[in-house]
Amino acid sequence: MSHRIAVIPGDGIGKEVVPAGIEALEATAGRFGLRLEFTDFGFASADYWQRHQRMLPPDWEETLRSFDAIFFGAVGWPDVVPDHISLWGSLLQFRRTFDQFVNLRPCRLMPGVRSPLADREPGDIDFLVVRENTEGEYSSVGGRIFEGTDRETVLQETVMTRIGVDRVLRFAFEQAQSRPKRHLTSATKSNGIAISMPYWDERVAAMGEQFPRVRVDKFHIDALAAQFVLHPEWFDVVVASNLFGDILSDLGPACTGTLGIAPSANINPDRRHPSLFEPVHGSAPDIAGQGIANPVGQIWCGSMMLDHLGHPEAAAHLLGAVEDVLALGPKESPLTPDLHGTGTTAELGRAIAERVRER
Amino acid sequence: MSHRIAVIPGDGIGKEVVPAGIEALEATAGRFGLRLEFTDFGFASADYWQRHQRMLPPDWEETLRSFDAIFFGAVGWPDVVPDHISLWGSLLQFRRTFDQFVNLRPCRLMPGVRSPLADREPGDIDFLVVRENTEGEYSSVGGRIFEGTDRETVLQETVMTRIGVDRVLRFAFEQAQSRPKRHLTSATKSNGIAISMPYWDERVAAMGEQFPRVRVDKFHIDALAAQFVLHPEWFDVVVASNLFGDILSDLGPACTGTLGIAPSANINPDRRHPSLFEPVHGSAPDIAGQGIANPVGQIWCGSMMLDHLGHPEAAAHLLGAVEDVLALGPKESPLTPDLHGTGTTAELGRAIAERVRER
Ligand SMILES: CC(C)[C@H](C(=O)O)[C@@H](O)C(=O)O
Ligand SMILES: CC(C)[C@H](C(=O)O)[C@@H](O)C(=O)O
Repeated sequence: MSHRIAVIPGDGIGKEVVPAGIEALEATAGRFGLRLEFTDFGFASADYWQRHQRMLPPDWEETLRSFDAIFFGAVGWPDVVPDHISLWGSLLQFRRTFDQFVNLRPCRLMPGVRSPLADREPGDIDFLVVRENTEGEYSSVGGRIFEGTDRETVLQETVMTRIGVDRVLRFAFEQAQSRPKRHLTSATKSNGIAISMPYWDERVAAMGEQFPRVRVDKFHIDALAAQFVLHPEWFDVVVASNLFGDILSDLGPACTGTLGIAPSANINPDRRHPSLFEPVHGSAPDIAGQGIANPVGQIWCGSMMLDHLGHPEAAAHLLGAVEDVLALGPKESPLTPDLHGTGTTAELGRAIAERVRER
Repeated sequence: MSHRIAVIPGDGIGKEVVPAGIEALEATAGRFGLRLEFTDFGFASADYWQRHQRMLPPDWEETLRSFDAIFFGAVGWPDVVPDHISLWGSLLQFRRTFDQFVNLRPCRLMPGVRSPLADREPGDIDFLVVRENTEGEYSSVGGRIFEGTDRETVLQETVMTRIGVDRVLRFAFEQAQSRPKRHLTSATKSNGIAISMPYWDERVAAMGEQFPRVRVDKFHIDALAAQFVLHPEWFDVVVASNLFGDILSDLGPACTGTLGIAPSANINPDRRHPSLFEPVHGSAPDIAGQGIANPVGQIWCGSMMLDHLGHPEAAAHLLGAVEDVLALGPKESPLTPDLHGTGTTAELGRAIAERVRER
């Protein structure tokens, strides 16, 4: 089996962790007789912006469309280009143009990783955030009026559609139904956000009727954020709007020790467009350039990508190698500083790739 | 000095913790020679709704306006009336009609309270969330079109005004300037929410020029939520829009052990309208009726109310009594179950009132 993968390292630590991700993927491909053909692209980065004053070449869509998947690092470098321009000009474009309407973000406390929460063991935290990824609160609809005066008013539209809400809910219900606990939690804020969130609640209730075996509950986002800290063991699958899913899928990984290990998959479940795999952590200007970024998020993305491409065994093997290396802890594995070790990105990546070959 | 206080217990545990709050306030008033005159109101509750099919009497505004402050329990009982109706029909009305544009929410790890975060001691977590409280994402502007069809689309407006944003930012900068660390963190999401949040960032930058001695940083809300868990010690004053402030001021208290102790003050800093003091926890249907709700949030609200009414020493005395009782821990104080004790609401309230008299 052969797959063509578009590689976009992007900015900051994206450029550092992507090579580690590729190394791990190549090791896995070797073990399972897969052919992965990687093609590197320099666009969707501040470097590209500096040269071209835009984030993407005009033909980006047809270029990327010919690939089976996109392996993405991180984009955003506010010293050079404001975030809302770099993101709307690349990542958020990809999500919409390729209709990657599900953003799947597993939150799992891994062996060997210290949680910032007291007395939590691997197994205590293991849930999946299913985030709506194309509409909702992320919108550039709206504007300013009476600018520069005391009447200055800014309107920002949240847009939800029946199609957009129902398809991500269906996906989340299906995920919940396929898991042992069959438990779905919906994130809402219908007590304060008076038009869109009551609508979200209605659609959750309607979809729930089609999945009678799934236990459904809902939390307002404020209470839900609190419960992620107080009772992360309560959750199985959590479905959320674009903004709420964004918040919960940074908070969840924080509760599991470090943003450095969290992966995400921007999926077009119809498979009419390529899906995109990116770690949750972002470009991390504060540690970029030091070679100490944790590559596990990027490598775990590689595992999710293999799964999406139809290779669940290879995916599980790669994730197992990650777990093995983490479980050894900072004394025996070259874990990065966020994992209380002194290893570099390259050393940890190498250790995982080796483990892939040995296991 | 005499003050007239409107008391609105509301729903659920609101009705249980408010009497404990009054007991503590009366003890404090006794110590400091203050006269507090409490008047109870049954509206803004599900009981009232069942009798009248509305949350408030027609003359609520002039009734409440004649008081110096409002001591509020909690509102919301979804079995009887949907949250968006009960909240928009009471609490959110109060905030807007009385222009309580600042919602002040201290997050502090108290002595004797176990944090869910590993290895955190009192003193490690002590910050203030300043939340915009009248506009932003909490809006009932918008609507549905093409209902019931595949084109069904829901629009929800976020509304920010220069006046509304600037006044809460000014308040937050002033708070930061008056504290030893002089550090203000702004919560944003300008990389995804493309109209309103870049505007927020601009106003923060503009206001910052008037406060050169305040160190300002900003975090996107997703990263900020993560840092509350990973590095709560980084924060001093955090300023946020209505929704982001709501989320952060539940998450912050969760990191300090329990939502049960967190207070909030809905303040009209101009003092042209009464301010309202309510605990963060809400009506908590899951534990209502058992008499085990933690009254500390409500009592701490009483302390904030005394401060607002011009009695900082009485306020500090009351908060000190709370700290003394908490510091003794669940063996020696009748702490409630959320604090790992077996005390009741009434017992813990009584212990704090006694401590007020003794200290
Ligand atoms: C009940 C709800 C509308 C309210 C809010 O979101 O403002 C509450 O969560 C709060 O924080 O006071
Ligand atoms: C960079 C930003 C626009 C993005 C988002 O909010 O979607 C990121 O936080 C993510 O979660 O992928």
